[in-house]
Amino acid sequence: MQEPFVAPKSTEEFRHLFPPTGQQTPTEEPVLKPSISEGTTSSISTTSSVVSSNAGIDYVIVFKFPTNVTKGDETITSRPQLQSHVAASLTDITTRLTKVNLRFQVRPGKEDGTLLILVSSPVGPIKQEYRQERVRDFLLGVRVDEIEDTSTSTAVTDQAFNDLTDAERLRLVHEIITQPESDGGAGISVHVDEYVDSIMPLHDDKFNNAWLKSWSTKWLITDNDLLKIRDHFGEKIAYYFAFIQTYFIWLSVPAGLGLLVYLTHSNTLTIWYSLSMLIWAILFTEMWKRKEHELAIHWGVRNYSKHEKRRTEFKGEKMVKDHITGEETPYVSAWKLFGRRVASLPGVAVGAFLLSIIVGFVFLLQLFLHEYYNGPFRQFLHYTPTVGYVLLIPTMTGIYSKWVKILTDWEMHRTDASWEYSYTQKIFIANFLVGYLSLFITAWVYIPFGDHVIPYLVEFNVSHEHKTVDFLRLRAQLVYFVVTGQLVGFLTEMVVPYALKRIMPEAKKLSEKVTKKERKSSNTDLANIADAEEAKFMEKVYKEVALEEYNIYTDYVEMVIQFGYVSMFSTVWPLTSVCALINNWVEIRGDAIKICKYTRRPIPHRAESIGPWLGNMETLVWLSSITMGSFAYLFHPSTNIHSPYTPIFTLLAILLSEHLFVALRAGVRAGLSLVPSWSEWLIRKEEYKLKKVWLERMVGNYKQFVERSVDQENGNADLTDALSTKIWSHHLDKEVECNQGLQYIQNAFKTT
Amino acid sequence: MQEPFVAPKSTEEFRHLFPPTGQQTPTEEPVLKPSISEGTTSSISTTSSVVSSNAGIDYVIVFKFPTNVTKGDETITSRPQLQSHVAASLTDITTRLTKVNLRFQVRPGKEDGTLLILVSSPVGPIKQEYRQERVRDFLLGVRVDEIEDTSTSTAVTDQAFNDLTDAERLRLVHEIITQPESDGGAGISVHVDEYVDSIMPLHDDKFNNAWLKSWSTKWLITDNDLLKIRDHFGEKIAYYFAFIQTYFIWLSVPAGLGLLVYLTHSNTLTIWYSLSMLIWAILFTEMWKRKEHELAIHWGVRNYSKHEKRRTEFKGEKMVKDHITGEETPYVSAWKLFGRRVASLPGVAVGAFLLSIIVGFVFLLQLFLHEYYNGPFRQFLHYTPTVGYVLLIPTMTGIYSKWVKILTDWEMHRTDASWEYSYTQKIFIANFLVGYLSLFITAWVYIPFGDHVIPYLVEFNVSHEHKTVDFLRLRAQLVYFVVTGQLVGFLTEMVVPYALKRIMPEAKKLSEKVTKKERKSSNTDLANIADAEEAKFMEKVYKEVALEEYNIYTDYVEMVIQFGYVSMFSTVWPLTSVCALINNWVEIRGDAIKICKYTRRPIPHRAESIGPWLGNMETLVWLSSITMGSFAYLFHPSTNIHSPYTPIFTLLAILLSEHLFVALRAGVRAGLSLVPSWSEWLIRKEEYKLKKVWLERMVGNYKQFVERSVDQENGNADLTDALSTKIWSHHLDKEVECNQGLQYIQNAFKTT
Repeated sequence: MQEPFVAPKSTEEFRHLFPPTGQQTPTEEPVLKPSISEGTTSSISTTSSVVSSNAGIDYVIVFKFPTNVTKGDETITSRPQLQSHVAASLTDITTRLTKVNLRFQVRPGKEDGTLLILVSSPVGPIKQEYRQERVRDFLLGVRVDEIEDTSTSTAVTDQAFNDLTDAERLRLVHEIITQPESDGGAGISVHVDEYVDSIMPLHDDKFNNAWLKSWSTKWLITDNDLLKIRDHFGEKIAYYFAFIQTYFIWLSVPAGLGLLVYLTHSNTLTIWYSLSMLIWAILFTEMWKRKEHELAIHWGVRNYSKHEKRRTEFKGEKMVKDHITGEETPYVSAWKLFGRRVASLPGVAVGAFLLSIIVGFVFLLQLFLHEYYNGPFRQFLHYTPTVGYVLLIPTMTGIYSKWVKILTDWEMHRTDASWEYSYTQKIFIANFLVGYLSLFITAWVYIPFGDHVIPYLVEFNVSHEHKTVDFLRLRAQLVYFVVTGQLVGFLTEMVVPYALKRIMPEAKKLSEKVTKKERKSSNTDLANIADAEEAKFMEKVYKEVALEEYNIYTDYVEMVIQFGYVSMFSTVWPLTSVCALINNWVEIRGDAIKICKYTRRPIPHRAESIGPWLGNMETLVWLSSITMGSFAYLFHPSTNIHSPYTPIFTLLAILLSEHLFVALRAGVRAGLSLVPSWSEWLIRKEEYKLKKVWLERMVGNYKQFVERSVDQENGNADLTDALSTKIWSHHLDKEVECNQGLQYIQNAFKTT
Repeated sequence: MQEPFVAPKSTEEFRHLFPPTGQQTPTEEPVLKPSISEGTTSSISTTSSVVSSNAGIDYVIVFKFPTNVTKGDETITSRPQLQSHVAASLTDITTRLTKVNLRFQVRPGKEDGTLLILVSSPVGPIKQEYRQERVRDFLLGVRVDEIEDTSTSTAVTDQAFNDLTDAERLRLVHEIITQPESDGGAGISVHVDEYVDSIMPLHDDKFNNAWLKSWSTKWLITDNDLLKIRDHFGEKIAYYFAFIQTYFIWLSVPAGLGLLVYLTHSNTLTIWYSLSMLIWAILFTEMWKRKEHELAIHWGVRNYSKHEKRRTEFKGEKMVKDHITGEETPYVSAWKLFGRRVASLPGVAVGAFLLSIIVGFVFLLQLFLHEYYNGPFRQFLHYTPTVGYVLLIPTMTGIYSKWVKILTDWEMHRTDASWEYSYTQKIFIANFLVGYLSLFITAWVYIPFGDHVIPYLVEFNVSHEHKTVDFLRLRAQLVYFVVTGQLVGFLTEMVVPYALKRIMPEAKKLSEKVTKKERKSSNTDLANIADAEEAKFMEKVYKEVALEEYNIYTDYVEMVIQFGYVSMFSTVWPLTSVCALINNWVEIRGDAIKICKYTRRPIPHRAESIGPWLGNMETLVWLSSITMGSFAYLFHPSTNIHSPYTPIFTLLAILLSEHLFVALRAGVRAGLSLVPSWSEWLIRKEEYKLKKVWLERMVGNYKQFVERSVDQENGNADLTDALSTKIWSHHLDKEVECNQGLQYIQNAFKTT
């Protein structure tokens, strides 16, 4: 893409959705290109758009191998054996790359035992892949333009192909590299090839800089900006930004309302405010569903989720010949699958339980030190809980994440979508506990029953200060979480990587000085490369290989957990949404910087939605009805919180509130279903055009078909049996029949 | 269809779903026909299958006109004016029928002011309609076979066309008659043409008799029997029978369990029995969803519900030019639509409220007379409530139905599906109240609080007997409903119509004798028809015109309300499901008789499911969790029903039970999603075949496309810019690159 930030003309924005009447194929990419008819000049410019920057390099395959035998490995026992094994693996990869007509070069990596295979695809293989994808897309209903049949339009296809976006090109090359060999790919994958560490595309610095510059100077991100992200990074990343942006805009409503309530009410737990927040949360989730769907159409990924791609990791119990395709496919019985899913539940439960204990422990420590403890080192000990939140809990969450990843892999998911769904849910559980557990304990256990603790403290001779345990304690806890959480998030996401980026090279230089002598014969010496520009480019490659992969889960988790604070606890502290609003303005831009500077370029996957996160938000909205309902009763000034009947009435308040939630949601859904959505209109339009094209297309045969039947069969030849002849023989003249009818009417009017 | 009850060979059962490899088009109808290649003999036999029986008459349009001017009509004030208006209307209809090439004859009706337009379609128009439908079906994803493009296969199409089922033929003709003129139909409709009273097909007596004979002699209805119903009456009717049959089979589980509990437990409200019933109800609804989906595939109607056909009645506020099609289409703003939907809610509420009052009144009367009243005429007054249930309440429900029909029409629904959904929900509300309200009152109001009533009776000097108000009262009420309800249903559905059919002709004869003289000049005299066979046929036509239309709502309502008794109240009287089981065995056969003998033949509409009834059953399952949860607590022997805390604890029991229900349902759904369903497998198979055909089909162009690119562009011509040249110029030999890599590996093993 030559000018990534030129806005496409709005009328042409959906050109890709509508095939021009007749036989023409639409172009895919909305950014306008000079049309093919302008001749050779344009054809040069389009060619250069298909070739990405980075010297035509599409992917870097990081090939990492050990140079020493691992103990306990029984098949490879000596170094020469290992060497030949590594060599064979490399040869295997290069052979497969050659087979699919990809260009590649092998270069030494920065670290020992690392090779970088720079892969570049000529136009041919991409075209082939593109073609296959179009057939699949058409059949899934992702693309509605029909696939032209015969000779007509290679030129048109060429043009559509030349308008490929960066993301599409990269996705197609990724498909070629990773697709199984039986499907015509090279079948290279981290899971199949032992020494392949990762497959990564390279950043387009020109695009990145333009992007960061553009976003840092504007207040609001438009749909057009998102379209550019989609064209460059693919739909999955674009959906994240679309979500955070939509959420940011929606947040302005509770932020304004919250500010108002904060300034005017002393009791913020009023029913009207709670109800408004509940309705807002329901409306937001329902409207996001719409927006998501509209974007899917806009971005040409509608129905994409129907495409079930088998995970390369899915091995099954045994290989079975598929009844349908006749191919050998891994098979696993439904019972085993069911068993494993069920069996993994206790695994998740144990992990979640241990995590809860740690969260509970840190919380109790915090409570004890802040509220009761009055002994020595008080000033100093005050900070231990924060340390716990910043260091201990994230570490434990990290361990939990690894544990559930193992569990999810063990569950044997057939498709990526299924795996991702299962994994996301487990991740969500952990973050849910870390984010909200201590607040729930405070609200539902500590505040109602906390005063019973003090006698025990006296008994154990712990010096303490008695404070009244009340609603303000919950608010303090919430403020602590919202403010600290967002600050810590900002620090770990932005400041720490920045600092590391500054400090690490210095540290490396120091260590390199020490090891320089030993590393003389190392093959990473850039001085070997004569040309300065080439050396600079390789430096960039090494730098990007050293970066982490972009993890979209953490970003979604952060937003969804924040949504939970806003929807569940806004009534406790109305400024929650104001904080969230400010945080997110920074967050959007921070994430852009993160993707550009601190992580590798993500592989541009397609996506039709934000996936399971929507479901998680809906769960949070349901919980909001519970929290707000119970808080509104429990912390109402007139409620005697220590009465033995309070728990029962709290439960009743929850019961009422939950039903209210279900009713409200049904109402909102019914109401929204009546408002015609832009996306429905677009789909209808699509479908009409498609139908018209199809009908036009078969007109030749169609006419013949109908005419023939009119000739041969319109002549009542079908009325052959005895009764038919009797009934119809005197009634075949249509005019006579009509007159006969009129006669009957006349008679009827005469007689009565 | 010549031999309606020959079973199709099972392997060929799904032939219609899979296009034979290559260019062939599959046949639609599963019943095997001799293939087209057998020559002229077969072509005669297939022709006769396309022509339905009944002398080739597909539809009878009943044309009813008044012969006297209605008072208050301002446009038509005199009889001659009326006559010419009627005549114009008839001419208009016949003109339109002529335009679409349908045959018709006008015959006098049995009653005065009635004409019968017998419509028959030659093969030509049906073929044309068939063709259009196939394109639409293909685009909606209903049919997966592709539409052949060019000259290849008129013969194949002809064969597929000749294999049309009766239902399909009738549906196509109905489309031709009713479709708007702009879509190529005759645009005749009850709502558009003032004097068109109805459009009805004629029964195929041969099929009907074979059907009744076959079902009355077998115990279980198989999928194959259902397929025959679908082939003859269309999917909508077939779905009803499929539902009642599946439900019948599923009922055997609670019937067995109920019998067991009835014989062994004195307290039938145990938690385990309640839980089993809840799980059964959830499982049944979830499994029916699957079954429904499987049938949709089996019957070739999957995705059909996506087809949004505009209601002929939908007029909108104004005509607007459609942005997409450029046609004038009725338009109504979303606000108005929303407003009307909301405004109709109070209308329904008032109707439901009045109905509730009547139901409540009858119930109170029953209660008073059975439980307390001890005065004069006791024996006689005992039966008044039953009279109320059998006469008063059905009448009121009928009035309510008419009222909500007006409301639903007023709501301006754009599509039939939307109208039907809205109407069904309103009908369901009425039947819900009639069926369950008095049981709810008994359980939740009368039993806990009923003893407070007695003092008032004493005060008002009403003589009474005091009975203990307890759980058995609820059981008695339930038994009364289940048993009486089913008996009454059987009587009104089967015995009364039978009696009427016997008695009415006699009564008519009597009255005809009286009026014979006056009616001498009447145009209905069958004696005018010379031929006996023709006269007999016309007699059949008159008889069927005199019948009521088949109302599928009442049949569904009956089943769904019964499902409610089973799922909500089985724990009160475990024999409920036994009664239901017996009733349904009779019901299935009774409904078959009803359709064949007591109602007109239904127009064979398509359907993809049982529609909103599934949702209503899911609502009932949710309510089951409430009823069973509260009964289990409220009527437990250890519960003091008159304690002031009982209501609160009952609410808690409900809360708990509802959550249990939601969790169970989620669990069942998750579990079922792992079990591979037959329908998914079939869809996968379909899609694979389709993809293969498409790929094969475009091979010509495809090869050219790929080859061309390999020739021209595989030659690294794209690496033109300075950096690319530098990076790649020395790295284009793939073998050298591989060796280079091996060299690096060797070095790595040397140095470390």
